[in-house]
Amino acid sequence: MAIAEDVKLGQGVQIHHPQLVNLYGCSIGDDTKIGSFVEIQKNARIGCRCKISSHTFVCEGVTIEDEVFVGHGVMFINDRYPRATLSGRLQTETDWTVIATRIRHRASIGSGAVIMCGVTIGTGALIGAGAVVTRDVPDYSIVMGVPAKVVGDTREKEWNL
Amino acid sequence: MAIAEDVKLGQGVQIHHPQLVNLYGCSIGDDTKIGSFVEIQKNARIGCRCKISSHTFVCEGVTIEDEVFVGHGVMFINDRYPRATLSGRLQTETDWTVIATRIRHRASIGSGAVIMCGVTIGTGALIGAGAVVTRDVPDYSIVMGVPAKVVGDTREKEWNL
Amino acid sequence: MAIAEDVKLGQGVQIHHPQLVNLYGCSIGDDTKIGSFVEIQKNARIGCRCKISSHTFVCEGVTIEDEVFVGHGVMFINDRYPRATLSGRLQTETDWTVIATRIRHRASIGSGAVIMCGVTIGTGALIGAGAVVTRDVPDYSIVMGVPAKVVGDTREKEWNL
Repeated sequence: MAIAEDVKLGQGVQIHHPQLVNLYGCSIGDDTKIGSFVEIQKNARIGCRCKISSHTFVCEGVTIEDEVFVGHGVMFINDRYPRATLSGRLQTETDWTVIATRIRHRASIGSGAVIMCGVTIGTGALIGAGAVVTRDVPDYSIVMGVPAKVVGDTREKEWNL
Repeated sequence: MAIAEDVKLGQGVQIHHPQLVNLYGCSIGDDTKIGSFVEIQKNARIGCRCKISSHTFVCEGVTIEDEVFVGHGVMFINDRYPRATLSGRLQTETDWTVIATRIRHRASIGSGAVIMCGVTIGTGALIGAGAVVTRDVPDYSIVMGVPAKVVGDTREKEWNL
Repeated sequence: MAIAEDVKLGQGVQIHHPQLVNLYGCSIGDDTKIGSFVEIQKNARIGCRCKISSHTFVCEGVTIEDEVFVGHGVMFINDRYPRATLSGRLQTETDWTVIATRIRHRASIGSGAVIMCGVTIGTGALIGAGAVVTRDVPDYSIVMGVPAKVVGDTREKEWNL
């Protein structure tokens, strides 16, 4: 089991295989479901009634509001120009600044998407599977591709519940 | 170990690290190899003599026929417009319809590919690494890119065994 | 724990969750950090002071030199035309030739990138998140996209330390 003692778990959080996740220093809201092979780092905040699907990585600096769907194999990022070392020694936390990312209420992120740091994904937006999101996504927008571009509006879809 | 009792394993299935996979309610054909960090959901069917490589997610509704190669970190999908919630409560299985996907005999799917729901990948086809497949792939076609487009035919390659 | 006895671990290698990695037959240099859900195959060589982030797959034939950053969910490849079977039986190691890949000193590979086999990524180069690298990347180049193309030079950036 790799759920650190400092994780703040809300009521009714569902983690079917606690031995197959790696959670530390994060907070998870009520009734959220976390899939297998998920890592969530310290200072990441996940809201209530979210689904965080298998194989997804949520890094420090990411805030996910309520009722957000995150697909399988989604990668969040918090550093624009990552490096392993600084002047020949391993970088430590003091060597870089975390760039924050926010996912607003009821957004959905398709499987295999990559979310660059510093962006906000708007309320009710939909990120297509495999998209690479490099800039802000307006509320209710549907985006696709590499880099992701707006292709529609979720409010015009019958499945917008 | 996260191989549920309801998994139907054929003869000679190879899973080197049973404690590092998550299989439930699925069927796996004879002599198929399953890598580490693989999740296969209920009602997914994998044929005989396949290779399902590490970090891959196979969801409900996916049928993989015999002798198929699935690379590392491949993501299958069964829901076109995923949402975490319906009217403010977590979605349950009764809230959506699984859209089926089929991978025909001897196809190969490169690592990091994302396969949208509802597609059929034809016999002997080859999906390039990192491709996002959004429509049917004809038999023996080679496809690449985001979205994936046909760039060749596997029958014209000397490695078409 | 899935660190095979034949793994050559340097001094000060950091693996926080040995039970959540799969390492066999590889060598890892001094002070390198390995994240969770990482698989590194036999005959892969990782240098000193590298960071290999969570969910990454490093296959046989990959050489990563010193001080390289590898992001989360990065997939390496060693076979251009993968197949599960040969003449109806599962392929074995003797049925294919590993195509080598080399990542030179101080390069950085963004999360979700896919690295095709046979390429060399040059010293100090930066691979954008989600890129699919299909050819050699010159020293200090910044590449992005699918397929990855040169968009800049890391020596012109203030963060080139």
